[in-house]
Amino acid sequence: MPAPAPALVVEAGTGAGRRERILDAAEACFIRGGFHRTTMQDIARAAAMSAPNIYRYFASKEDLVLSLADREVRRADEQIAALEDGGNVKDALIYIIRHHFIEITAEKAVLHVEMWAEMTCNPVLGAMHQDLQQRSAAWFVAALARLATVEGFDARALYETIDPLMKGIVVNRALVRGYDPEPAFARLVSLIDERLTGIP
Amino acid sequence: MPAPAPALVVEAGTGAGRRERILDAAEACFIRGGFHRTTMQDIARAAAMSAPNIYRYFASKEDLVLSLADREVRRADEQIAALEDGGNVKDALIYIIRHHFIEITAEKAVLHVEMWAEMTCNPVLGAMHQDLQQRSAAWFVAALARLATVEGFDARALYETIDPLMKGIVVNRALVRGYDPEPAFARLVSLIDERLTGIP
Repeated sequence: MPAPAPALVVEAGTGAGRRERILDAAEACFIRGGFHRTTMQDIARAAAMSAPNIYRYFASKEDLVLSLADREVRRADEQIAALEDGGNVKDALIYIIRHHFIEITAEKAVLHVEMWAEMTCNPVLGAMHQDLQQRSAAWFVAALARLATVEGFDARALYETIDPLMKGIVVNRALVRGYDPEPAFARLVSLIDERLTGIP
Repeated sequence: MPAPAPALVVEAGTGAGRRERILDAAEACFIRGGFHRTTMQDIARAAAMSAPNIYRYFASKEDLVLSLADREVRRADEQIAALEDGGNVKDALIYIIRHHFIEITAEKAVLHVEMWAEMTCNPVLGAMHQDLQQRSAAWFVAALARLATVEGFDARALYETIDPLMKGIVVNRALVRGYDPEPAFARLVSLIDERLTGIP
């Protein structure tokens, strides 16, 4: 039996529901085909909507990337807030590292590297990255400072080591066939624990 | 007094000299305009040669990238051999890290990120990266093992931390305006020294 036409379901949704559906479709298309090769028409097809309808919600692929980043940040913030409210700062730290840098697929890592390349020559996406980077740095530094038990701990210095390390793990995930990020994650956590406690 | 027309000088050069001149021009064009936006015509103009003449030496932009990587490896090998012959393994290690990951310009870092993105979807460049990665890993692991003074040192584990860390420093150099790689370099060297000696 053929599945019911998804277009009908989507078109019948609310504005917010349609927006989410378009974002899901855009994310899937970008991961599958890359940012450059994906067209608004591809995204419309994946969302089972017409292209003019997509443009009612998002002006461009760039606009979709900004909204996807916003959504990711909002979701991470909710998850962090839930963990931190329970006093689990360490769990929140581990969650963020695993979720954003370790548990991503190789295809998503490829998209990250492509978007980094794009950000270097697209001022709007570059500005988005600067903003995300600053927010991320502020959160990591505060979390690390709360977790430290050793005298004279330098949260900023530790963040500035783990930040490029996490990015490099994403590069390897994208580039090195069969790269397993788990040992890199274990070494990263050991390094963090060492610096937080002063115990090698 | 106007400078003599460089075209005459170049065209009069030897085959090997012309090859080097084309590689220099290609590197400058890639760094200035990016890999994608650079055309063989741009490279011909920068080398003060005709495009058909360029094609006598290099079949494509991809071929130029492969040859540039070969040249970089050959130059690094010579520098390393000179340092290692003098018994300066630590100097060779520091040289390689500084030269490839720290002393590059922001523009060259941008080209690295663009090439990583390219390697994920171009099998020839991807294979080149796998090969370089393996050679680089073998050299780093051997150098670290020679330098260690602590019992039970794991050279592979240390390499697998510093490799993504160095790549992430390049990502930050490309993406973060005004990023200073020197503090990151100092922390990287401290981490290496700590692991080699077992002294925090």
